[in-house]
Amino acid sequence: MTDRGKIDTNPPTGTRDFLPDVLERREHAVQTIKGVFSQFGFQQMQTPAFERLEILTGKYGEDEKLIFKIQRRGERAAEGADLALRYDLTVPLARFVAKYRSQLPGVFRRFQIGPVWRADRPGKGRFREFWQCDVDIVGSASPMADSDILLAISSGLTALGLPDFEIRLNSRKVLAELMNRCGIPESLQRSALIALDKLDKIGPSGVEEELVSRQIPLQAIDMLRPILNASPDSDGSEVKALLQDTASGSQSLHELYEIQQLVEPLLETGRIRFSPLLARGLDYYTGMIFEVYAKDFPSAIASGGRYDGLLGMFLKGDQTIPACGGSIGLERVLELLETTDSRAPTPSAQVLVTVWDNEYRRDALRLANDLRKKGIATETYLGTDAIGKQLRYASTKKIPFVIVQGPDEHAAGEVQVKNMSTGVQAPVKLEDVIDYVIDQASAAK
Amino acid sequence: MTDRGKIDTNPPTGTRDFLPDVLERREHAVQTIKGVFSQFGFQQMQTPAFERLEILTGKYGEDEKLIFKIQRRGERAAEGADLALRYDLTVPLARFVAKYRSQLPGVFRRFQIGPVWRADRPGKGRFREFWQCDVDIVGSASPMADSDILLAISSGLTALGLPDFEIRLNSRKVLAELMNRCGIPESLQRSALIALDKLDKIGPSGVEEELVSRQIPLQAIDMLRPILNASPDSDGSEVKALLQDTASGSQSLHELYEIQQLVEPLLETGRIRFSPLLARGLDYYTGMIFEVYAKDFPSAIASGGRYDGLLGMFLKGDQTIPACGGSIGLERVLELLETTDSRAPTPSAQVLVTVWDNEYRRDALRLANDLRKKGIATETYLGTDAIGKQLRYASTKKIPFVIVQGPDEHAAGEVQVKNMSTGVQAPVKLEDVIDYVIDQASAAK
Repeated sequence: MTDRGKIDTNPPTGTRDFLPDVLERREHAVQTIKGVFSQFGFQQMQTPAFERLEILTGKYGEDEKLIFKIQRRGERAAEGADLALRYDLTVPLARFVAKYRSQLPGVFRRFQIGPVWRADRPGKGRFREFWQCDVDIVGSASPMADSDILLAISSGLTALGLPDFEIRLNSRKVLAELMNRCGIPESLQRSALIALDKLDKIGPSGVEEELVSRQIPLQAIDMLRPILNASPDSDGSEVKALLQDTASGSQSLHELYEIQQLVEPLLETGRIRFSPLLARGLDYYTGMIFEVYAKDFPSAIASGGRYDGLLGMFLKGDQTIPACGGSIGLERVLELLETTDSRAPTPSAQVLVTVWDNEYRRDALRLANDLRKKGIATETYLGTDAIGKQLRYASTKKIPFVIVQGPDEHAAGEVQVKNMSTGVQAPVKLEDVIDYVIDQASAAK
Repeated sequence: MTDRGKIDTNPPTGTRDFLPDVLERREHAVQTIKGVFSQFGFQQMQTPAFERLEILTGKYGEDEKLIFKIQRRGERAAEGADLALRYDLTVPLARFVAKYRSQLPGVFRRFQIGPVWRADRPGKGRFREFWQCDVDIVGSASPMADSDILLAISSGLTALGLPDFEIRLNSRKVLAELMNRCGIPESLQRSALIALDKLDKIGPSGVEEELVSRQIPLQAIDMLRPILNASPDSDGSEVKALLQDTASGSQSLHELYEIQQLVEPLLETGRIRFSPLLARGLDYYTGMIFEVYAKDFPSAIASGGRYDGLLGMFLKGDQTIPACGGSIGLERVLELLETTDSRAPTPSAQVLVTVWDNEYRRDALRLANDLRKKGIATETYLGTDAIGKQLRYASTKKIPFVIVQGPDEHAAGEVQVKNMSTGVQAPVKLEDVIDYVIDQASAAK
């Protein structure tokens, strides 16, 4: 380091430092979500930041190139990587379930909240280090498991203070039945779904054009047209009309309605909607799928579904484990809350105890100690600068109360308590200081 | 994955998965520490898990080989690493302070709690992924900053429930004065300190032998002998006797006593002790240093000191920033608490609402929802198995209360509430269920 002026002190591309005010909001959101998930009987678990590389390879298709790999140590560095930062919380869950299955309850209700890492191209709202909040029920095929996930996610978003969001609900089975019923050949179904999933963005005629360009039979497009043109408030009757005349079609709809009917009475009116063209995460979902959208926000703020085939990936033989889960997009939710949340950041402390001179340091420390014992966050000023400077420090840090004790106050067995927002300063007997500050602080709220 | 039976589902060497019961203790400890640090007006900050490699290189001497390096992505993988997992929270703090200095208060009281990674050889209590809890005051040279760190660490350990610990206090300046006063040549001082630091392990005669083998002048050993043989309860008079006759020697002692005298009245008697041979972290400490030991536990459970030279490492020119801080060894503290903490793990929920049959699912969900709104963590049973099986589920998961509503109860507008520890079951009117459960749950505590 001969030229220290040249050092780049930015965090790595796509990652962020969090200053206290911003971090406080994140922490508050995380604790809120944890609280809600716990209220539903979900328990928190944790896995390491990195996994052995073989655990992650072959799980993410094309996106595998986005995995951050960790070099072997020492002389073996040239041999490449043996570890990798986790890319999501789902593959680690599969490993976890395979390893600890005998110690876990038969129905394992878990959540995990923490960072994941992807070497994606960074962009607005897209980071290389970002947090996921996953909640899952492992080991239950009951529709009540699906409904618990929907309720937990919905309660979490409400507790975060998001007033206006909509859960769009669909099912992999309904989608498959729909494709079959319209006579779309299996080889084209995936391609058709990509087009259908764009309804919100390009509208019915846009989707029709894209279906044509993807060689979807015109007869199938004719059959899909009523669904494409259905009102956003449709109860799904257009889909029902197509699927009700086969047993498997009716069954797929019935299963989805069952879930919807379980959660609907507990949600505000209009919060959940059957969204028959919603297609997300085709690769591993096997049952219900959902995405949650907030008003005027382009991306889903939560999503999930049932994925009965996935968690068996590390088990011997062909065991499958029924599972469903969801994830709250913490970064998006925080971005959204930033625009609506006008709370001032909490000051670092409620009280600053000033220090008149060196003789008064011990008294200041003792008073601060007593205040903390009563739950009042308290700083002592570090040093014996002029009281005016100490008051300015409190003002800069937005500490609402300042305590001053000079020789006169000391002789009288009292202190001055200054309310920094009103400017009012009052003498208070030493034995009454704590009650006085508690009173004042609660009055100020 | 042709042979899935061969997949190793262990977490990577030196890392750990945390099952809910264990994680709950960790979370509780972390939240406790955060609470105490916040009470002292410290604010939390966060940096990414990895840094650009150049930020970490040249900072850790020999130990640099323990840094986990992240491979470049894509075609550049062969070129080696460009990022690295953080090795501690101090170098990231230095980068953070250099970057955000203008946005931070002149005296920045911060804490950071999170994982760091070191490719150390794993062993008992030594991990490759472990958590650090750092608390620091950046920008103050006042002894009140040093005393705030000691008080915050000590309060944190007390709040964690550690009854019996001792803070050993010393200072880099006292050590330097001592070496000079004994006539140990500067080139041998470091070597001498390594020997002196072993007093607890090998005793006075062991240290003397090692000093001899390290070519320390015999005259110096004669002068150090009273200190080596001082009682553990010594007030430091042996050191004073040596240092009081030079101005710089007296000054070094005075500065340390000043700190000790600030904190001592707020600590239990005997909690802090001048420990004149304590030498830790010679490389960057410039003033007071400390280590905290718990009874019958071999390693320090917290440590720290003043390091005025370190945080300027990323600043232009030769700026130095006064700073002091400390760190609670979370992994060690948890290991220690494990042996004393006999609390049963908190059950995942307080109440299980059983489901008689499909007709009762909505009622069960609504009751669960009402209980959660009153702050009672509640699970609904996922499915409609025989009630006996549902009760066994509650018993396995140690859920203390179970609510059953069958057709008879439904007709009577009531439910049965079963206390799983007493076995007592009582009919309760639907409108009284919440109050009843709250009463019962608080009575059970």
